[in-house]
Amino acid sequence: MSYIPLDERSVAPFLATVPAVALRLGGAPEGWQVREVGDGNLNLVFLVSGPDGGVAAKQALPYVRLVGESWPLPLSRAYYERLALADEALHAPARVPALVHHDDGMALTVMDLLAPHRTLRGALVEGERYPLMAGHLAEFLADTLFFTSDMAVPVAEKKARIAAYLGNTAMCRITEDLIFDEPFFDAPMNHHTPGLADIVAAFRADVPLRLAAQGMKARFLAAPEALLHGDLHTGSVMVTADDTKVIDAEFAFYGPIGFDVGMILANLWMGYLAQPGQRPHAAIDPWLLDQAEALWEGFAERFAGHWRALSPEGDHGSLHALALTDAALREAAIEERLAAIWQDALGFAGCEMIRRIVGLAHIADFETIVDEGRRADCERRALLIARALLVERAAFPDVGAVTDALRLEAVAA
Amino acid sequence: MSYIPLDERSVAPFLATVPAVALRLGGAPEGWQVREVGDGNLNLVFLVSGPDGGVAAKQALPYVRLVGESWPLPLSRAYYERLALADEALHAPARVPALVHHDDGMALTVMDLLAPHRTLRGALVEGERYPLMAGHLAEFLADTLFFTSDMAVPVAEKKARIAAYLGNTAMCRITEDLIFDEPFFDAPMNHHTPGLADIVAAFRADVPLRLAAQGMKARFLAAPEALLHGDLHTGSVMVTADDTKVIDAEFAFYGPIGFDVGMILANLWMGYLAQPGQRPHAAIDPWLLDQAEALWEGFAERFAGHWRALSPEGDHGSLHALALTDAALREAAIEERLAAIWQDALGFAGCEMIRRIVGLAHIADFETIVDEGRRADCERRALLIARALLVERAAFPDVGAVTDALRLEAVAA
Repeated sequence: MSYIPLDERSVAPFLATVPAVALRLGGAPEGWQVREVGDGNLNLVFLVSGPDGGVAAKQALPYVRLVGESWPLPLSRAYYERLALADEALHAPARVPALVHHDDGMALTVMDLLAPHRTLRGALVEGERYPLMAGHLAEFLADTLFFTSDMAVPVAEKKARIAAYLGNTAMCRITEDLIFDEPFFDAPMNHHTPGLADIVAAFRADVPLRLAAQGMKARFLAAPEALLHGDLHTGSVMVTADDTKVIDAEFAFYGPIGFDVGMILANLWMGYLAQPGQRPHAAIDPWLLDQAEALWEGFAERFAGHWRALSPEGDHGSLHALALTDAALREAAIEERLAAIWQDALGFAGCEMIRRIVGLAHIADFETIVDEGRRADCERRALLIARALLVERAAFPDVGAVTDALRLEAVAA
Repeated sequence: MSYIPLDERSVAPFLATVPAVALRLGGAPEGWQVREVGDGNLNLVFLVSGPDGGVAAKQALPYVRLVGESWPLPLSRAYYERLALADEALHAPARVPALVHHDDGMALTVMDLLAPHRTLRGALVEGERYPLMAGHLAEFLADTLFFTSDMAVPVAEKKARIAAYLGNTAMCRITEDLIFDEPFFDAPMNHHTPGLADIVAAFRADVPLRLAAQGMKARFLAAPEALLHGDLHTGSVMVTADDTKVIDAEFAFYGPIGFDVGMILANLWMGYLAQPGQRPHAAIDPWLLDQAEALWEGFAERFAGHWRALSPEGDHGSLHALALTDAALREAAIEERLAAIWQDALGFAGCEMIRRIVGLAHIADFETIVDEGRRADCERRALLIARALLVERAAFPDVGAVTDALRLEAVAA
């Protein structure tokens, strides 16, 4: 069907024409509950409930919703999102909403309604805890990243998958601009908390830092190691006490494994660093630091476990295939690859932290700190840590080293 | 036209139907001289001369010529060769034969006849010198690699070019198998000079070496930095006293810049290391060592020069675009990138040297040493150097360090 943007009145009659959706909701469309909740920056999102069940219908707009029609963005992102959602579901079906229906012409993706889920970011800002979250995200990362990598996928098949996502350039371009470039010059849409002007200026003149950020951009541009989610911050994660789901895969492409890992770690670390501003009179809660450690360690262990479970007789990729029958070689390969992913993750985490404070798109963790002096203080500490993650990466051989550095900052706050 | 393999009788009547070819050759096809010279491993190559000029007509066979119909290889490699030849000609027109005609159905590529050129490898084995060769190859490498990289090409355009070559999986697979995997286990088609059994066995049990080789394979599989020639050994280079041309681009794809650089360096270094076997009673001639240094240094200088010549107003890529107006940042970026290319080149050179001695495809430099004891001695020295290039890369911060190591080996021989 050719493209028409839906609204709260037209979405139910439209979805009633799709048997898979109508069956799931039950009853007549006149009785369905519809709520538009697109609180993100890009799309329309309708939550639709009927007597038998619910769906979330996400429709791309031909521009960036946050900014308006002056910033066009291709509808093809809906195509890449449903492609990625299907690929993610192959490897981590419990960690993504099930795809119910898609309509490429309408740029529409209909998924299971996630209820009573809420976004992880919103929950963290309120100080909520989700004990299963770190393990679930480790599972999502290890399963989607390992099983789309050269260790698991034969090379010709992997190249065909790389090619399938190479057209998603507009979404990659947003990351390239907003994460690796704009934070380091006076880009028009940048903004920052008053009180940070000195460090913002210093960063823009900081050759080692800018070089390191471009080094991460080089990896983002030309290291198709695995299928990335591409935007795995805490706003792309929906949680309940028992469940964790990853949504919003429209930034998906084949890139460096450390990008997804580093972005989610950065967002957990920022959640921790925002605490002295959010709750200035409370003791600092180390829970988010523990979760970041559990996430990395859970990811590393599960990634290694998938690797160890490959056998010469089963499906496997061509990289390190010789190690399938040589335990010493395989263990050395696992150790080396995880160390390289960790180093990448540090650099990408540093870029993500910087851009969330001095670039266009900020995060509620800091933005909800009403006192600007306190907010600037938290953000400055995050910026200094971020610079160290990028420029002094060798000082952080493992996640514990980052935990130690963050704990010292929080104590000083 | 649909595929029919040509032979020395059918090639002239066939080419006479192509106006661009008939015009260039002049006269009637009955009078054209035809010679089939496919001394490579894969294809038919016809040299065709008429009263007004000549062409080389290269036709792919649906199998590996060296091995026979039992090893099929897709005709699509002719398509990728003409694609690469056209891309190379955009950036380094003086360093490749001009494309005259192509016929994808016939898997046929017709190029300028290179006369009186000969292969660089054959010339080097006979001790010939070509004073312009290193400079010409530096030019080919810097021009084709820089101008297809993320520094020079906007990202969406570069991704479209990556995609255009992603289907050339069969040719990449040959490299993956023969260079990175088979030398390190008892693959059926491996062979080596008697007297090397101990070091061959040691290499197959050498965890750090095998890990390093797989690390290079990981880069080969997933680092689309620039359009590579993909098979740049001295048999892919045609020389005269005044001219140097690079042929046989059917292995082309987007990969790590250090692969092309490392492969040609390895072949020059092997030419040097073969001398004590080729001419046991002559003094060692350092000319090839000097050429390898000149090639690397010429490449690095020209690559940096292209980078420095980019301006914000002119065509450029998005990587390091912020450095176009910041000389300090740009120089730091150039230095860092060249150091990374050098480290990659060392690793790829090590793999190339090992596979030419213990794998399937050997080289005339060593194979023409009739005395097996002398040959094994030269090859053993090359293997030990190659291992060091892969495993002790930090010991070779620059090309001079490799020169010193090679000179010591040759003195000891």
